[in-house]
Amino acid sequence: MNDSVTQPLVLAGRTFSSRLFTGTGKFSSSAQMEATLLATGTELVTVALKRINALDRQDDLLTHLAHPGIQLLPNTSGVRTAREAVFAAQMAREALETNWLKLEIHPDPKYLLPDPIETLEAAEELVELGFVVLPYVHADPVLCKRLEDVGVAAVMPLGAPIGTNKGLRTLDFLEIIIEQSRVPVVVDAGLGAPSHAAAAMELGADAVLINTALAISGDPVRMAIGFRLAVEAGRLAYEARLAQPSSHAQASSPLTAFLNE
Amino acid sequence: MNDSVTQPLVLAGRTFSSRLFTGTGKFSSSAQMEATLLATGTELVTVALKRINALDRQDDLLTHLAHPGIQLLPNTSGVRTAREAVFAAQMAREALETNWLKLEIHPDPKYLLPDPIETLEAAEELVELGFVVLPYVHADPVLCKRLEDVGVAAVMPLGAPIGTNKGLRTLDFLEIIIEQSRVPVVVDAGLGAPSHAAAAMELGADAVLINTALAISGDPVRMAIGFRLAVEAGRLAYEARLAQPSSHAQASSPLTAFLNE
Amino acid sequence: MNDSVTQPLVLAGRTFSSRLFTGTGKFSSSAQMEATLLATGTELVTVALKRINALDRQDDLLTHLAHPGIQLLPNTSGVRTAREAVFAAQMAREALETNWLKLEIHPDPKYLLPDPIETLEAAEELVELGFVVLPYVHADPVLCKRLEDVGVAAVMPLGAPIGTNKGLRTLDFLEIIIEQSRVPVVVDAGLGAPSHAAAAMELGADAVLINTALAISGDPVRMAIGFRLAVEAGRLAYEARLAQPSSHAQASSPLTAFLNE
Amino acid sequence: MNDSVTQPLVLAGRTFSSRLFTGTGKFSSSAQMEATLLATGTELVTVALKRINALDRQDDLLTHLAHPGIQLLPNTSGVRTAREAVFAAQMAREALETNWLKLEIHPDPKYLLPDPIETLEAAEELVELGFVVLPYVHADPVLCKRLEDVGVAAVMPLGAPIGTNKGLRTLDFLEIIIEQSRVPVVVDAGLGAPSHAAAAMELGADAVLINTALAISGDPVRMAIGFRLAVEAGRLAYEARLAQPSSHAQASSPLTAFLNE
Repeated sequence: MNDSVTQPLVLAGRTFSSRLFTGTGKFSSSAQMEATLLATGTELVTVALKRINALDRQDDLLTHLAHPGIQLLPNTSGVRTAREAVFAAQMAREALETNWLKLEIHPDPKYLLPDPIETLEAAEELVELGFVVLPYVHADPVLCKRLEDVGVAAVMPLGAPIGTNKGLRTLDFLEIIIEQSRVPVVVDAGLGAPSHAAAAMELGADAVLINTALAISGDPVRMAIGFRLAVEAGRLAYEARLAQPSSHAQASSPLTAFLNE
Repeated sequence: MNDSVTQPLVLAGRTFSSRLFTGTGKFSSSAQMEATLLATGTELVTVALKRINALDRQDDLLTHLAHPGIQLLPNTSGVRTAREAVFAAQMAREALETNWLKLEIHPDPKYLLPDPIETLEAAEELVELGFVVLPYVHADPVLCKRLEDVGVAAVMPLGAPIGTNKGLRTLDFLEIIIEQSRVPVVVDAGLGAPSHAAAAMELGADAVLINTALAISGDPVRMAIGFRLAVEAGRLAYEARLAQPSSHAQASSPLTAFLNE
Repeated sequence: MNDSVTQPLVLAGRTFSSRLFTGTGKFSSSAQMEATLLATGTELVTVALKRINALDRQDDLLTHLAHPGIQLLPNTSGVRTAREAVFAAQMAREALETNWLKLEIHPDPKYLLPDPIETLEAAEELVELGFVVLPYVHADPVLCKRLEDVGVAAVMPLGAPIGTNKGLRTLDFLEIIIEQSRVPVVVDAGLGAPSHAAAAMELGADAVLINTALAISGDPVRMAIGFRLAVEAGRLAYEARLAQPSSHAQASSPLTAFLNE
Repeated sequence: MNDSVTQPLVLAGRTFSSRLFTGTGKFSSSAQMEATLLATGTELVTVALKRINALDRQDDLLTHLAHPGIQLLPNTSGVRTAREAVFAAQMAREALETNWLKLEIHPDPKYLLPDPIETLEAAEELVELGFVVLPYVHADPVLCKRLEDVGVAAVMPLGAPIGTNKGLRTLDFLEIIIEQSRVPVVVDAGLGAPSHAAAAMELGADAVLINTALAISGDPVRMAIGFRLAVEAGRLAYEARLAQPSSHAQASSPLTAFLNE
């Protein structure tokens, strides 16, 4: 066995060798976006339904995402209620010919935090309608279990508010979610540096989703490689089992005062 | 130019393509140590003088470290004073035929924290004696500048007490050290996970040194690969310039409630 | 005006001069509980309905809580659904002759985290039934706004999981909740030290609720005084406006090298 | 015994009932400084020698500090070497008729971090000259022990760089210093909020020194009261023994689903 290869992720029956999911917002051009996403090695890319011109299949954005290894994950960003989300999901399924859906319902225009009530309600209905539902949620362990109970394919708790690049501010709750979940846990939002992504994977997250930190970096392609390596690093560490922090120091070199011997 | 290649590190006139330095303590066997260090891609390996049998060049430990790309860095672990350190350094130079030296003076057997006074005194003398001195120090910006002034080749501030795996607990001071230093800054001690190593590199550290987290992992070789990737990831992110944390959220997907349009 | 007096808190039309709310669990005796609560100066004390013997008004626990300045706040700890909560609330109102209610719905026996869906549903119904509802919730800003919209008297987001004493782990989200809320924000659960309570108040929380950290301390009465002072300290600092953290140092003493003058 | 009274601090044979030491820099006027310091209840006030007009005993600053319960602690702020420090100390002793001295040697004008080498050298000489020496140092446990060995009356490690208000950034090292020290430990510099001061005291610090956070607050007198209460709160909590953080939640209210009984 190759020591550098990690376990693949199985999500809704599909196998992913990359555990780095990506978004498509904020890039300076579609060409830059395409180059960046290819550099990440991502196999799951979320795209806002709003940005897709459903009438024109030559749509510029979609053209740049048309790669054999990439599964599109339309998202409902912009909707404010379960009802709007269900409607948007159906439009997305028709336009993109996929039943995968990232469910995002955030009524608040300032922090874009998700609504737990509308999200659960929409998730339940969308699962019944045959969607593969990946809901974006606060790092709320009870909500994650309820979503799992209605049949979502994964849960996507946030690490920090979207776009803040603050990292794993919800660490204590992500630990509980990961411990309890029987569906994959994808840490979404707030991860601003490769070290944040590595930390999420070390904690046992099944995948992470990165967007802002790539798109607004000084050099998106190199940053993409950085995130790809960091996700692999974190996953390797998780599988190899990290040493635990200890309060007492332990010498890694022998201590004896050899000069006296 | 290859986007995945980072700038090489030049330290004391020698060029390193790997920014991951390693130690040799606590491994379960010399064979496991060798396999692990090779998996890290390390080009600088520190070894306690105490563990070297100077009279026997077939010494088991050294045999396992005899690889063309690896520079040995003897360390003075176990000494308690500048005087002992200088004596140990001279023994090391003779035994290992290198004038490179990791200067470690820690009188305290419990936390193994370095002594600033003895370290500066020894560094000054060792530089005069022609050594390439890399002192292990507390993350003390003023001490680092003084060591630089007496001619050390790099400074090696600690991230946390040795062997605690706590990560970058000295972050605020490492930032100042990195900002002010004209010699390479190598973060040493306390880094317990790949995410910690990535974070140090993102901060602008020139290299990191890892030992305990590799040696006591459940699977040292896989952990080694994890650290290698994480160091590359952190360096790439540093060179590509990270997005800054922001207190306000910023959507990475468009926000407009498209259903109303 | 007395500089040491802070603004009173008005909650549901009642004025509180103490911003330290308390619980009644885990004390070694009712007498110890009474002495401790009196030492905190608390004016709002929550008590689990389960622990009240409704048929016996000489109930030991209630006797110890019968002080003129103390408002009882029955809680629904132990219920798992909105339906159970509403039933329990009605029992509590009858037994204790108060319509104040701390709404707690936590189906999970390990971490006791609150259920957002059941909590909102129960809150809506209880408000309609004339209760003064203070719901215990995850630090979820969107949920807090929805609870406010249905008419709760305050929101009680958690700082960390109950009983962990970890402090303000939800800081980033409490800031948003406090910024957005038009009802009082009471930080509940997880505060394990006076410094944690002070930090919550400095952030702008209207009050905190403490229980475990008092009850399992080595000396509950002295710890009670500690928390009382810390809550006052944090509130004073909030009202006096804290200096902001800065990344650059600023001397508080003059720097000029006077010896050269 | 009065439960709200904490153990007095004995430092160099003098007993202090207040564990809040203060500085005198950055206040908008001497009158404001006086009112603020009196509100803290402080019994030890440091003043930069540079600001004292030694020839004029009607000096405005000193007049405002002339209170019976206040011990003056001249400091050497502005000096860059041990030699300058010793000279400044002697001037201070003559001018203020006290042999107490806060030893500060910080050559760096940007971050004002202390120099460990010069500080130890000056401390040794000043102790021999009969001074009661309180050195301001980095949170370096080995340096603190060496200073103790040469006879300082207390050590004053920093919490964060002066004037940054960042709080206990050196926590891991302060814990070690407090565990090992046989002289009082006073946390100095960087404490920007009452919660920071409380946290230092909870950790077991013997006292804290506050300046910037008082002087640049929106309302220094009220902030002073806040810090006074927070220091008392933290000390009470330390003496009463805090509950330890736990990774598992523990209910403070009974969990049984009482409705089923």
